[in-house]
Amino acid sequence: MTRFHVTYRLVAADRAEARARAEGIAYEQTVEVPPDVVPPGRIAQEIVGRIETLEPAGEGVFRTTISYSPDSAGRDVVQFLNVVFGNSSIQTGIRVEAVDPGPEMTRRLTGARFGVEGIRRLCGRPRGGLIAPVLKPQGLDAASLAAIARRCALGGADIVKEDHGLGDLPSAPFRARVEAVTAALAAVQAETGRRPLYFAVLPGQRTEEAIAFAKAAGVDGLLVMPGLHGWGLMARIAGDDTLEMPVMAHPAFTGAFVQSPAAGIAHGVLYGTLQRLAGADISVFPNVGGRFGFSEEDCRAIARSCLDPTGPGRPILPSPGGGMSVDRAAGMRAMFGEDVCYLIGGSLLRHGERIGEEIARMRRALDEEIA
Amino acid sequence: MTRFHVTYRLVAADRAEARARAEGIAYEQTVEVPPDVVPPGRIAQEIVGRIETLEPAGEGVFRTTISYSPDSAGRDVVQFLNVVFGNSSIQTGIRVEAVDPGPEMTRRLTGARFGVEGIRRLCGRPRGGLIAPVLKPQGLDAASLAAIARRCALGGADIVKEDHGLGDLPSAPFRARVEAVTAALAAVQAETGRRPLYFAVLPGQRTEEAIAFAKAAGVDGLLVMPGLHGWGLMARIAGDDTLEMPVMAHPAFTGAFVQSPAAGIAHGVLYGTLQRLAGADISVFPNVGGRFGFSEEDCRAIARSCLDPTGPGRPILPSPGGGMSVDRAAGMRAMFGEDVCYLIGGSLLRHGERIGEEIARMRRALDEEIA
Repeated sequence: MTRFHVTYRLVAADRAEARARAEGIAYEQTVEVPPDVVPPGRIAQEIVGRIETLEPAGEGVFRTTISYSPDSAGRDVVQFLNVVFGNSSIQTGIRVEAVDPGPEMTRRLTGARFGVEGIRRLCGRPRGGLIAPVLKPQGLDAASLAAIARRCALGGADIVKEDHGLGDLPSAPFRARVEAVTAALAAVQAETGRRPLYFAVLPGQRTEEAIAFAKAAGVDGLLVMPGLHGWGLMARIAGDDTLEMPVMAHPAFTGAFVQSPAAGIAHGVLYGTLQRLAGADISVFPNVGGRFGFSEEDCRAIARSCLDPTGPGRPILPSPGGGMSVDRAAGMRAMFGEDVCYLIGGSLLRHGERIGEEIARMRRALDEEIA
Repeated sequence: MTRFHVTYRLVAADRAEARARAEGIAYEQTVEVPPDVVPPGRIAQEIVGRIETLEPAGEGVFRTTISYSPDSAGRDVVQFLNVVFGNSSIQTGIRVEAVDPGPEMTRRLTGARFGVEGIRRLCGRPRGGLIAPVLKPQGLDAASLAAIARRCALGGADIVKEDHGLGDLPSAPFRARVEAVTAALAAVQAETGRRPLYFAVLPGQRTEEAIAFAKAAGVDGLLVMPGLHGWGLMARIAGDDTLEMPVMAHPAFTGAFVQSPAAGIAHGVLYGTLQRLAGADISVFPNVGGRFGFSEEDCRAIARSCLDPTGPGRPILPSPGGGMSVDRAAGMRAMFGEDVCYLIGGSLLRHGERIGEEIARMRRALDEEIA
């Protein structure tokens, strides 16, 4: 059976220490017992992680690739991620730099149901950057959020996405909000023959009820925060053949993973590879030049991982959020290319009744150089 | 309505920058729009976070406490955590050092159903440290894991806990494993009149089916990894009045939060306060002196937060794992006191058929000085 491979960056004084640390990971992430009590035979030979490579990677730093049996991960993304970086995340000086699930785990895990191509088909937007204005802020009532959704729809938005902080708040409870926004978008459809996709943010509890309600109400997709809702919930939605709803992944509560070059998970892996494996069709991350400190190279790495045509699973849409504006459209298009979903957030509210005009301006700016 | 309070450590060159960063958090974690587009009235006055204190805390470091309205968090732990540290987790140089949910959020969130007192009652162990051997390793079949459970039960274990890596693997699928272990423990009960609680680890997907199956099969409690299963799932189990199952929280995939003094979440908050709010009855964390690099002070901070009688919710059991042995029993008891649940892991397997005798030795060592 094809093993899967994880590449770790290790802090270690010398090769002997690096070897010991790599062996520690191989045991910790699988059998989690000392080598002398591992049952001989298949468990020792197949289940325990296997050091495939170990190379110096700078002063006091090594890089190791460890392979694991799919039978230590099973068939769900939670246990897969647990093998990749469950307990090792708690140890100091270990960073996940690459994850290659290989054909067997790629087959077992959900992967994106729609991906770039599927989302483009649903939007009716075969080319050009997608525009996804965000419904916000917290505290507005459902009718006011629906009014913003209407303006965004009339302006030609591809996706109307809810802010991840709307949850199920008393100001605009989940069900009331979903009903108001779907009604507003249905009205736009009746008037113009076209409406954007609507992605509602899931509440944190009673999620099964919320998913069913959203589907029945006509919501097109769901915004999930894997760091809070759980990676399993995202995969559960993506994998549901009766639901057929695309998923947008939001990075809330995951920032600690990318704060240190010596620990956590590399940007492209966390917001690219792992999102693909867990079933996201669109992966939101903080844009360069915004208020989050991601570099251009961080963002490029994420986009590359999302779009890599060689897998795993379908390519998905990178979705930079924060600080997007008409002025930056040409630069962003040069950097990300066409297959990208731009979140347009708080600054849009500055345009009040004229939000739709601003979205139309953005559309023209993004399309300017497309033949 | 009583607001809740979060204390952040900020990296900032001077007070002006610290003030700007604190204001940034107050907006980012709530309305997530620039100040000039916040709707006036209730949203500006109540929903936006409020800087309560801002003090220098060392060279280039400040500490700020920001209060939030419960109406920006709603009634579930996912949205509560999103306000505490959703987007701010992605910004550099911000660390959560304290969370005080206040009476209103404490009332709204699940909290532990059992806590220290409830778990002691279920175990029939009114005093002394609890002993929780771990079923492992990955790759053993269900019958072999059940045989270990039997030995642990005969030795006087209080809780038999599954390794978090057992998931739903082909070697011992969830249902087959649960059936084998519950049968083995029922046999011990029939022979001796006593058996330990059995905590099974939840698979990552089809969790609702797995919860129902476990309950029907006679599983006593569930092991959940909030970093992977999601914080909402843990709260959903804890809050279910028809289920009445205790929850043990496992720290897998959360280590990045505590790797840096300048980012993430303080040990006591992540593995204490937040676990309490999300409904854990027992919070597992890496013991000092093991292979994870937690200091004695880190572990003490976690235990203090778990056990603080002033709340929030019920006190819960701190559960240090890794490196526990009979030799360390006296030292551990001196450090943690009586209200603690000791995980005994891989080293136990070294005793083979005599696992039960080793657990009995541990019991005597822990009880030695109890009157």
